[in-house]
Amino acid sequence: MQKIMNNPQNAVEELLEGYVKCSSSCVERTKNPRVFVQKEKNKKRKVGVVSGGGTGHFPAFIGYLRPGILDAVAVGEIFKAPDAEIFLDAFREADMGEGVVCIQGNYKLDNKNVQDAVELAKKEGIHVERVVANDDVASMKDEDRSSSRGLAGEVLLWRVAGAAADMGYSLDDIVSLCKTAMDNTKSIGVGISACTIPEVGVPNFDVVEGTMEFGIGHHGDPGLVTYKLRTAEEIAELMLQEIMKNGDYAVGTEVLILLSGLGSTTQMELYILFNNIHDILIKKNIKICRSYVGNYFTSLDMGGASVTLLKLNEELKKIFICSEKSDLLCRF
Amino acid sequence: MQKIMNNPQNAVEELLEGYVKCSSSCVERTKNPRVFVQKEKNKKRKVGVVSGGGTGHFPAFIGYLRPGILDAVAVGEIFKAPDAEIFLDAFREADMGEGVVCIQGNYKLDNKNVQDAVELAKKEGIHVERVVANDDVASMKDEDRSSSRGLAGEVLLWRVAGAAADMGYSLDDIVSLCKTAMDNTKSIGVGISACTIPEVGVPNFDVVEGTMEFGIGHHGDPGLVTYKLRTAEEIAELMLQEIMKNGDYAVGTEVLILLSGLGSTTQMELYILFNNIHDILIKKNIKICRSYVGNYFTSLDMGGASVTLLKLNEELKKIFICSEKSDLLCRF
Repeated sequence: MQKIMNNPQNAVEELLEGYVKCSSSCVERTKNPRVFVQKEKNKKRKVGVVSGGGTGHFPAFIGYLRPGILDAVAVGEIFKAPDAEIFLDAFREADMGEGVVCIQGNYKLDNKNVQDAVELAKKEGIHVERVVANDDVASMKDEDRSSSRGLAGEVLLWRVAGAAADMGYSLDDIVSLCKTAMDNTKSIGVGISACTIPEVGVPNFDVVEGTMEFGIGHHGDPGLVTYKLRTAEEIAELMLQEIMKNGDYAVGTEVLILLSGLGSTTQMELYILFNNIHDILIKKNIKICRSYVGNYFTSLDMGGASVTLLKLNEELKKIFICSEKSDLLCRF
Repeated sequence: MQKIMNNPQNAVEELLEGYVKCSSSCVERTKNPRVFVQKEKNKKRKVGVVSGGGTGHFPAFIGYLRPGILDAVAVGEIFKAPDAEIFLDAFREADMGEGVVCIQGNYKLDNKNVQDAVELAKKEGIHVERVVANDDVASMKDEDRSSSRGLAGEVLLWRVAGAAADMGYSLDDIVSLCKTAMDNTKSIGVGISACTIPEVGVPNFDVVEGTMEFGIGHHGDPGLVTYKLRTAEEIAELMLQEIMKNGDYAVGTEVLILLSGLGSTTQMELYILFNNIHDILIKKNIKICRSYVGNYFTSLDMGGASVTLLKLNEELKKIFICSEKSDLLCRF
């Protein structure tokens, strides 16, 4: 494994330790070594915003502990959901008396552990509502999203919930806004090289040179279909086709684009792909209100990208436009 | 070549096009297709700040067109210095009547083309002063920095010049401050995998599995020494040793750290390496005032990292601390 690393078994701990040392102005540890909070969280009484999941998706989750995004995160081992106790501690940290919204990806163990933690929190008088990110269209069955995986669209929910909480929205209103946002959010991923879990030391599946995996998740799982490696323009076409056949994108629809690298993809590739995505959408008379291109939700060192479209309504537009100056959805 | 790309010969143009479409709120094209400017540059009369160089170092150079950093950039082909005419057009764009500072890496053709452009600008009454970034200690000969390559330390000069210009410094004072900053800036790079120029399609040198190239530049050149691949902690030790033997880092010295990935390095690796760098410096009683970890100056898809230490004096500290809230040295 050609990596800058010490003992692979300590990789999660050292990543977290390094991040906290680098970002000590905005992030701090708590008594639970797998729960982190953003420093300004107690500056005003508001709904707490929590997320969490396995490690390997950096900057998710810890990188989003910033004013206007997340207040606390629960961190698991590589690609493994955190225990219920970890989520519970994150809820305790984030609760300021106005309740907590927990946004998590639609994965079996995440669902179970968050549900258990919500029950435990209830016994302590902490009201937690769950919002599940299930934006992946590749794993969607006949418009039933209960089986859809979460992809990078989750990042946008954090932004929505964080901004709404800052604006004084109630817990119920935040949950309702997040659910609308999720209904409007669709993603698809393409992998062009596999990823390696440090402790395993070899790639967890093969992407044969000259091919690509279409419809991948971000846990190092192969795609739903293997295609010959296409040009960026063809990849953009395929991705948008798959997203747009799963929703209504009438002429004049306003969208936000999130194009995330999967870990080892260069920014050059991302912007070339973005250029094609942009042009295809413009040709379809879709209005692009905001675009984010970077490594927002990764899958260790996988090569490839996920694209997310969020259809904006007036309320969601306000949320994202108010972030323009402060750039609260940071650049990664 | 397993990449998301269209015709490799158009890669530079498509990268630039994609970036401008994504960042249209802060960047715009000019009449010269290889000169770009930041939109707010004419909001106040101040010294213009310019940089430029070959493509392949994204986010350098175009990604730094932001208020408080660069006003105009000259962009060349992959790893190739822009022509003098391109630099000249960038100077014309950046000049607001107070003169222009041009900060560029210490490479033969960049030096020549910038010098030629400075002469041409002079004839038009535009006063341009050059500051050369030569922070690489691996290519330094007996403390003579005239032979030293520029590495990621150049990014910090852009920040220094941009902030000073915003604060109303004169051209002479900016040049003097930048030169002090450069004297205080030292970098070293380690490569663990080579990079591929899109038009060539195969890696431009080999990094044998299990080895690393110590003292690399960021133009896909091999290192000065090939070592067995070390642990992150050992790499941190080697890098800091090489930097610190080339300068005075007495107990209590205050530094800024810039740890930049080279293109395909994961953030997990960077933070693990940062964790070791941080601890070694703390053990030496060096005070770390600010740290940036990310892809700040890359070498296409090379794997590895460069580390830069900038020794701070009171004036430089003010420059970087005033950027804390607005995060003007963005996260990449």
